[in-house]
Amino acid sequence: MRRSERLVYITKYLLEHPGETISLKTFVTALGAAKSSISEDVALIKGAMDQMGLGRVETELGAAGGVQYLPGREGERALALAWELSTRLSDFQRVLPGGFLYLTDVVFSPRVAARVGEVFAARFHPCRPDYVVTVETKGIPIALATAYSLGVPLVAARRESRVTEGSAVSITYVSGSSRRLQTMSLARRALPTGARVVIIDDFMKAGGTLRGLQELLTEFKAEIVGTGVLMVTADPPEKLVQDYLALLVLEEVDEVGQEVRVRPSSWLRQEGGEEP
Amino acid sequence: MRRSERLVYITKYLLEHPGETISLKTFVTALGAAKSSISEDVALIKGAMDQMGLGRVETELGAAGGVQYLPGREGERALALAWELSTRLSDFQRVLPGGFLYLTDVVFSPRVAARVGEVFAARFHPCRPDYVVTVETKGIPIALATAYSLGVPLVAARRESRVTEGSAVSITYVSGSSRRLQTMSLARRALPTGARVVIIDDFMKAGGTLRGLQELLTEFKAEIVGTGVLMVTADPPEKLVQDYLALLVLEEVDEVGQEVRVRPSSWLRQEGGEEP
Repeated sequence: MRRSERLVYITKYLLEHPGETISLKTFVTALGAAKSSISEDVALIKGAMDQMGLGRVETELGAAGGVQYLPGREGERALALAWELSTRLSDFQRVLPGGFLYLTDVVFSPRVAARVGEVFAARFHPCRPDYVVTVETKGIPIALATAYSLGVPLVAARRESRVTEGSAVSITYVSGSSRRLQTMSLARRALPTGARVVIIDDFMKAGGTLRGLQELLTEFKAEIVGTGVLMVTADPPEKLVQDYLALLVLEEVDEVGQEVRVRPSSWLRQEGGEEP
Repeated sequence: MRRSERLVYITKYLLEHPGETISLKTFVTALGAAKSSISEDVALIKGAMDQMGLGRVETELGAAGGVQYLPGREGERALALAWELSTRLSDFQRVLPGGFLYLTDVVFSPRVAARVGEVFAARFHPCRPDYVVTVETKGIPIALATAYSLGVPLVAARRESRVTEGSAVSITYVSGSSRRLQTMSLARRALPTGARVVIIDDFMKAGGTLRGLQELLTEFKAEIVGTGVLMVTADPPEKLVQDYLALLVLEEVDEVGQEVRVRPSSWLRQEGGEEP
């Protein structure tokens, strides 16, 4: 088998197993090549990825060693995505009665979800999460993509407990913005006790839902090592949840002036090299 | 830039844009290489993918031409996935009170979803769908993955209409197995009139939910060009929906004998080269 064929195979395999340490033996076996050739292939792929900012390829030496791919949508590339989404969402046609912004097509776009997931994965990988957790429904695509890129499972809390999920822990909470009483539940078998989790959701206003999810997770003795939200509203400035990372800020929905303003959040602008 | 670097870049780009026709100019510009070199790179990638059964790379000549990647999880590789899932699910520890099979961890697994999506995408790509449609919640991951692999958007019907989605069409239907009255709704702006859609869901017993979704889609004058379900129950043998493609069949949950039997569906076994 030629080098070019091996490069295509190994690149594809790494991209389809992000966050996983893959033994070089896997490739030696699959491709029938010497370990030294595979090592050279991996070095070439790492070099190409580094040079073009396509993500990180990390190699560990030794018997337990191997190679790991991590999507690297950071800095400028993360900011470029945030600006693209900001432009797409700053469209008054998206404003619904009541001043809500229609986000559904964006959060259910597989390509958007994949790229947002890469930003969160690059950010939260150092926190070594065991699981990504979200609450149904609109957060699921970006949470799934984040979990995919981190190489960990996804767990989704439900709005009501289901007979198809067995015994569950339920909590009642007050939605921060609508002040309505809501319930949220998570199947006992969905998450082991004491797991390290990253929370991902699509939208936060006052933060009541995420606060509820945090409470639910304490019932599982989970350690919340990170929280990522696609979009937060600028108002109210004080949220019920601290230490979250947002990609976008919904600054204003001006129903009289027929204007909507969404912008990348300040940490993204700083890391991407802009004055926020 | 060296060939090896170009191969890594182009392979990654194709894998991240399945179902999309990409002009060779995109690579000429990004990599600063001659079109003839890019053509050779694409031919090498196509050769490697073909040889190793990694998916299809199709090239079209001419001004409007370009290159397209399609995940090719078909035949043996589709069957191998179905056997892997059958083994994982044929576990009596998964049986919940009432005889329900716990599927949630499997359907929310990002890797499982990605691979199931590749099977459905390979199968339904020739039907030229514009959208993948599902109904919340557990079908979303595999539907998202299918949409990703087809390069089309995902649309998810909701159990109730939401103020954050604007005006919606709602229907009431009878769940086939539980005989309960249910509602399902889809935002007007979620789907244009007359779209070609593929329906994807995780589970079907009598087929009442999918029948409801079909009815809802007629309100959008959608043309249903395919229906894929991860798992169907063997009983009842007659479903309310025809012309669906299932990956797995839940043959039996024997609560007395403490046994569960899941197997790949017969078309997969035939195409994968087994006697069903």
